[in-house]
This record gives sequence, C-alpha cells and structure tokens, in this order.
Amino acid sequence: MSKVITDVFYTAFKTALPLTSSPLVQCITNEITVESMANALLYIDAKPVMADDQREFPEFFAQSDALLLNLGHISEVRQQNLLAAGKFAQATNQPTVIDLVGVSATQLRYDLGHQLLANHPNVVKGNISEMRRFADLKSTGRGVDGSQLDQSATALGELAASLQQLTQAFPTTTFLATGKIDLVVSAKGTWYLKNGVPQLDRFTGTGDIVGALIAALLGTGLDNDAAVVVAVSYFNCCGEVAAAQNRTGGLAAFREGTLNQLSLLAATADWLQMVKGEAL
Amino acid sequence: MSKVITDVFYTAFKTALPLTSSPLVQCITNEITVESMANALLYIDAKPVMADDQREFPEFFAQSDALLLNLGHISEVRQQNLLAAGKFAQATNQPTVIDLVGVSATQLRYDLGHQLLANHPNVVKGNISEMRRFADLKSTGRGVDGSQLDQSATALGELAASLQQLTQAFPTTTFLATGKIDLVVSAKGTWYLKNGVPQLDRFTGTGDIVGALIAALLGTGLDNDAAVVVAVSYFNCCGEVAAAQNRTGGLAAFREGTLNQLSLLAATADWLQMVKGEAL
Amino acid sequence: MSKVITDVFYTAFKTALPLTSSPLVQCITNEITVESMANALLYIDAKPVMADDQREFPEFFAQSDALLLNLGHISEVRQQNLLAAGKFAQATNQPTVIDLVGVSATQLRYDLGHQLLANHPNVVKGNISEMRRFADLKSTGRGVDGSQLDQSATALGELAASLQQLTQAFPTTTFLATGKIDLVVSAKGTWYLKNGVPQLDRFTGTGDIVGALIAALLGTGLDNDAAVVVAVSYFNCCGEVAAAQNRTGGLAAFREGTLNQLSLLAATADWLQMVKGEAL
Repeated sequence: MSKVITDVFYTAFKTALPLTSSPLVQCITNEITVESMANALLYIDAKPVMADDQREFPEFFAQSDALLLNLGHISEVRQQNLLAAGKFAQATNQPTVIDLVGVSATQLRYDLGHQLLANHPNVVKGNISEMRRFADLKSTGRGVDGSQLDQSATALGELAASLQQLTQAFPTTTFLATGKIDLVVSAKGTWYLKNGVPQLDRFTGTGDIVGALIAALLGTGLDNDAAVVVAVSYFNCCGEVAAAQNRTGGLAAFREGTLNQLSLLAATADWLQMVKGEAL
Repeated sequence: MSKVITDVFYTAFKTALPLTSSPLVQCITNEITVESMANALLYIDAKPVMADDQREFPEFFAQSDALLLNLGHISEVRQQNLLAAGKFAQATNQPTVIDLVGVSATQLRYDLGHQLLANHPNVVKGNISEMRRFADLKSTGRGVDGSQLDQSATALGELAASLQQLTQAFPTTTFLATGKIDLVVSAKGTWYLKNGVPQLDRFTGTGDIVGALIAALLGTGLDNDAAVVVAVSYFNCCGEVAAAQNRTGGLAAFREGTLNQLSLLAATADWLQMVKGEAL
Repeated sequence: MSKVITDVFYTAFKTALPLTSSPLVQCITNEITVESMANALLYIDAKPVMADDQREFPEFFAQSDALLLNLGHISEVRQQNLLAAGKFAQATNQPTVIDLVGVSATQLRYDLGHQLLANHPNVVKGNISEMRRFADLKSTGRGVDGSQLDQSATALGELAASLQQLTQAFPTTTFLATGKIDLVVSAKGTWYLKNGVPQLDRFTGTGDIVGALIAALLGTGLDNDAAVVVAVSYFNCCGEVAAAQNRTGGLAAFREGTLNQLSLLAATADWLQMVKGEAL
C-alpha cells in the first residue's frame, strides 16, 4: 500500500477544496491576527464568526459548524471564554480545534491547553516547540516561535512517540506539530508533511490561519486526520506558489501573495501535484 | 423630476469627495477590522480616533466631528462604552452612525441596537438580514452575514415599508440596509443603490468601513441621506474598479485594490459616471 | 568634526541592519496596529511577543531582549499592564521604549506617560504635538495626530530646549519627537533627522512601528541614541523608496510597499546614501 500522502488521503485531497458548502467557523482567538484569520476563512469561501462573549454562545453555537480556540494573546477574560466555549462545544458535539499558541512559553497556557484537551477536541495543534512542551518533552521554543533545535529527526521522532502515547488517553483527537516538517499523529497513524517555505515563519498568523482552515474543513464533515493533512498541505502550497511568484522577495508582498493564493490555488491549478508527505 | 440618484443628490456627489476638510471621526468598534477602518478613513483624508475608554470621552468628543458606534465583537466592556458614547453624542449633538453588526444573530445585540436607536442617531445601518431582524421582520442571516433569501425584490420592498414605519418614530434617522442592492430609507424618501461586486462579501470589514465613511461625510456637514448615498456609492465603485483591475482574480489582491481606490478614485476619475441607483 | 548624521553614528548605521541576531521584543500595545507591528518586527528579522497578561510577565520577560510600551487605545486593563510592565522592566534592566500615543489628547495618557517616565526608560517617543504636550509646551495636536503648527522651526527649537531640560532629570533617556523633521534629544546631544514622505501620515501605525523598531535595535545592544537615529532613518527611507516605486500613487499600495521595504532595503541597497540629518 502506497504511503504517499495524496494516496493515503486521496478522496479528501480530491474533494475538500474548493469548498462546496460554506461552513460557519466560530473563532475565539487573539486580537493580533484576528482580521487575517477572518479573511483567510472568507478567501476559501468559509464564513467566519469571531464572537467571544459567553452571553452569545448559545445563539452563535446553534448556527456554527466548527469551533477554533486559539490561546494567543491570553487575558483573564479570554481564558474564561475559551474554557466556557470548550465545554459548550463538547456538550453540543461541535467539531473543535485547539491552537496552543505560546504553550511553550508559560505555565498558564500549558495548564489551559491541558484543560481544553480534557474536552476531547478533534484537533490539538501547535508549533514543534509548543507540542514538545505540551507533551512534557524538553522544549527550546523562544517567545511564541518554534526552535530549530526541536526540529531534528531525533526530536521529531521523539515527539511522534510521545503524541502516540497521548492518543491512548485521547483516541478521538488528532495532534499536529508544525515546523519545517509537519507532524500529524492520531490513533490511526502518523504522517509527515513536507511542503512550505521558510518565509512562512516571517509573517504573523500563519499558524493561526492553519488552525482556522482545519476548523473550516472539519465544518464540512471531513474527518480529523484528513482535515489536518489537507489544510496544512494547502496552506503550505499557497506559500510555495507565493514565494515562486514574488518578484522582489519582499516579505509583505509574500504575505499578500500567500493569502491571495488561498482564494486561487484550489480553483485554478492541480495543486495536488505539489503536495509532499508520507505515512510513517 | 429625474429619479436618477446622481441627479437627486447632485451637489453632494459633486462636492463631497475628495474631502476638502479632514473630519475627526471617533470610532468605537470591534478589534477585528479596526486597523482597516482607521486606514480607510486616512485614505480618504479623514482623521480616525479609535479611543473607547469612557474616561477619555469628554476630551476626545470635544475634538471630534462625528462618531461611529459598531456592535461587532461585542463584550461587556464595549457594550458599556457604546451606551455611554451614544448618550454623550446625543447630549453634545455629535453626528452619529450606528452599525448593527450581528444584530441578526443575537438578542443581546438586537437589544443594544434598539437602546442606541433611542438616542436618535443620524444613521442606523446593517446588512439586509440585520436590518430585517432589527425591523422585526423574519431574517435568515447566518453568523454576521446577510442572506440571499433576504435580498429578493419582495423582501426588499417589505423591508423598505417597515423602515418607513420606523422613520415615523425616528424622523431624524436615516436607515441603510446593504446587500446586492442597497436600500436607503428616511422620512424624506426611499432610495435604491446598485453598485458593487460580489467579491465585496469576501473580505471582512467592508460593512464596517462603509459605516466609517458615512460618519466621515457627516463630519464634513453633509446631511444624513446624502452622506449615506455618497459613501455607499463611492465604496462600491471602488470595489468595481478593483475587480476590473484585478489581474489574477485573487481576493487578497482585490481587497488591497479596493482600499487603494479609496485614496484614488475620487481624485482621478469622474466616478459619478459609474454611479447607479434611483429614488423610489 | 562632521555633523552629518551618518558620520556621527557611523558604526551603528553600518552594522545595525540587517540584524545579525533576532532580538525578542515584548510589545504591550494597542489592538489597532498590533498585527502590523508584529509583522514589521518579523520583516526586519526580530521576534515579536505581544503578550500583555501580567501573570505571564515573569516568564516572558525572562526571555525577551527589549520592551515596547505603547499607550494607544488605552483601557483600564492595559493601563495596569503597562504600569506593571514598566516596573518589571526597570527591576530587570530590560531596555524599554515608551510610545506616548495620544498624550496630546487626554490628561489620563499624559499622567500615565509621566508615571512610566519615572522608571527611566531608554527611549520616550511621540509625534511633535505629543512631545510638546508631554514637555508642558502648548500643543495643537488633534486626535492622535501631530499638528503642522507644532512643526515650525521655532516650535522645534523650543521643544528641543524643553527636552534638553528633561534630560537633566532623566540623563539615561533619549527623547524622540517625530514629524516632518524628527527631533532626537538626549543628555549627549540633539539631532535632526530629515528623511520621510508626507504619505507616512496617511496610514495608521507608522509611529507605532518606529517604536517597535527602536526596541528591536535596543535589544541587539545598540545604545539609545544610535537605536533611535538608525530606526527612524531606516523606516523613513523605506517610505521614500515605497513612494518612488508606487506606480498608481494609491495609499494602500504605498503602505504595502513601505512594509515590504522593511525586509528589503537594508539587505539590497546602500541605504546609508539616502540618509539625511545632522547633529545640532
């Protein structure tokens, strides 16, 4: 059996994008990248709602198709909103993605991340350093960024093993660690994704947007593993096209180009040919 | 008498843009699109102030020429700030625009919108679905977006009649419902505006920006109806030019192009030739 | 001895940019321009952290190389966070920049600015009108913008004298007043910087970004005066290049071009040839 990633997830890659419905994605997220996240969802033809006032949860959750909980730029108010939303999502079977922004930096976010994991969300993601810290491995992340040291083959294998351990207690959760190579781990398997360009670390919100794209695909009914694999691959391919088309090499133009491709690549090119990755 | 919109509001269309003064527009608004809103105001040569701390209202209101109150991304703190600002504006005769973001989605925003209406603001706006809900008609809006169903000729006529009813209690307020066709209703008349392109629903903040542009025009002394008609038409024409010039069709490029035209169209082209709309 | 600015700060201009390390810059700042600020830091290859929850200060401050405190879009919560961070920075010798956004508009920000000055930060900056108000001179700023009236040669000389007075009580602080001509004052001297284009007043966040760039350069170990002079000159030169390359003259394209140059100019051109300014 082929281990090529587009073979393993063939149907999902073929049918997920462009979207044929417009899932409503509720995002409880940081103020830093909230506009870019909303735009990224609109560019793939999903519908963003960024409401995070608990008093409005019953009405918004009754409409939404998926939920994103992002730990970036935490505050006491948002912490409470995230916890309330996580419980609400579990009670109403809302497909949920947790983005562990900054978990490698502070105990508060580590604890909050584990509290949210207890609701058995569909997907838990972070960069390599965040996921190492979350899985109680030594992490060398700095600020909210992943570290090169955490991306060695050894470190990656170690993380894959630890996350596989976690799936025993959380068999319905898929774990994603993003980096030069992206690692996807669930009770059903382990996958490595190999698209992307280094410039994707040079504008803010790339990880946040990937979390939102995963939530959008979950909102269309895709299963956890497929939603993660397709969303990560698609975003990274958008970055590759943007880098190739970037005449000056400037990073603001690269950012604009990457976001632009979100609305173009799936519709205009046989982007599956670009996808690189494999099952372990 | 001609019912062509540029005839009806001839002087306003001829003189409003480019701005000859730089009105200071105080915006109490959501975090999602706040940067784009500030930039949109700067691009037309207005001056944005986004301060929303009640303790600073007396000093900022003493300087500002118009006020925008936007209900997006509500929180308990902002709810209080919006209510306080609405009262302050009424007491000081500050021209005020209310943007009913999300009123179709939650009771909290519906109630807040009606509380703010009680101050007799100059303009109350929302998308078609928000305005239907606000006028106690059946609304099929989803999340914070307008619904196609609410845009039929029948639905539009029904909304026009309901808003005309509202103007009896609020004769100094102009109501705007944005959609494929934009509906403007005040005690003085009913107007339909017919510019724009579908892509304007595919980046976040287009409605928010229109609200801010209306406030800017009110801040220059334009009357309510004229400010609404000119601001909506101008923004939609900017979108039309951006769509026509968009080489790749990508949505991030379209967004950038639309914002770019805000600073260009009035100064460089006889944009009045593009305007479509009529008095009922 | 030459008074040409690139001679006075020759080593700093030659070696500061492109960055050879990636300083971690902690920013406690407003929601309006926070994404653009984070991107600007990434574009010059610094690492932004925008965390502002006091509970996380010990962990983030242990990692960060410099601190930016920006008074924009103040709230009670941020006011407390800014004060706590200022004290924390002083206690831990963290290089700190204070950006006095809106100090010319409200007493609350004036008082907060002076409270933060009491911690003897490395740099205190604002636009000409903000710095005049902060130095207890008559200010004609409107909203959060500087006024033309405050930029006359007489007004500038008056401000330079007042800031020189301030350096007697604050000999380790460098003061920056931005405008058509930028004024830099410290116990070691007074400098005028003369780059930039008028369009830099036509998108939001230009002042905020300059504050963050100064913090980044402080984080690499540059001394206060050099960090201010190089950061201001670099940003203004980026604006000059963007204006020269802006085919349509549109302001959204100018904004994008300026941000793009942040990642390009130091690496691709002998930008020192563009720098204009002198020691008094």
